[in-house]
Amino acid sequence: MQLHSRLARDTRVLGHFDDTGVLLHRNAAVPWFILVPATDATEFLALPETLRNRVLGEAARTGAFVQQYFGSPKINFAAIGNLVPQLHLHVVGRDPADCCWPNPVWGHLHEHAEYTPAEVAAIVAAMTTHCTLQPAT
Amino acid sequence: MQLHSRLARDTRVLGHFDDTGVLLHRNAAVPWFILVPATDATEFLALPETLRNRVLGEAARTGAFVQQYFGSPKINFAAIGNLVPQLHLHVVGRDPADCCWPNPVWGHLHEHAEYTPAEVAAIVAAMTTHCTLQPAT
Repeated sequence: MQLHSRLARDTRVLGHFDDTGVLLHRNAAVPWFILVPATDATEFLALPETLRNRVLGEAARTGAFVQQYFGSPKINFAAIGNLVPQLHLHVVGRDPADCCWPNPVWGHLHEHAEYTPAEVAAIVAAMTTHCTLQPAT
Repeated sequence: MQLHSRLARDTRVLGHFDDTGVLLHRNAAVPWFILVPATDATEFLALPETLRNRVLGEAARTGAFVQQYFGSPKINFAAIGNLVPQLHLHVVGRDPADCCWPNPVWGHLHEHAEYTPAEVAAIVAAMTTHCTLQPAT
């Protein structure tokens, strides 16, 4: 999968599901996952219904993982793409105690934290075991 | 349908689809529709799959209407709900020429415009004809 330069800069590739690449935002201030459907289309809502529902199912699987793994009581889910035309879906774990609450992260997240390599490896392992992630090699 | 006080304040009810109430944000600076699924659940991604896909289909129908009626080249779609626990989905028509581009509207839309009653009536009529809206009485 060829990623838009901004996605490549801001995220790391964890692997893929059947219909989406699974990215983790490099900013660990909140658990922020991004799914990139394998399509050249740019509008999520205008995808063919079958693909749209499959992609939504993979977002739901990711959201359930985030709620369980990070303990996030709230998931923010969005297809925006005003800056990056390549279709991508945000699945963001939110908590009233996080640094950006109650604002959405987009344009409001000004703190930055880094995942350690061990933390990323643990996320990949947990998603592979519990969430049918096909990990990147 | 009982609306959360903030939705009731910020929007007007246009009518409903099979599974969602259809609201129009009072701020006409961008075409901003909100769908409220008929459920007590608060997490979109955690809805039962059948309902989740039906609601997504109604969002897709709304997005197609916004693209056609307002000429919006881009649709921003989101389930956030950090401030309003009642489940609601944003379907926002965006254009590189709009006052908020490229920022998402949430927390970034500082301009305000009003729809005239005739404009609202025309939107309801068009959604009823082209989009199977059941208009509010």
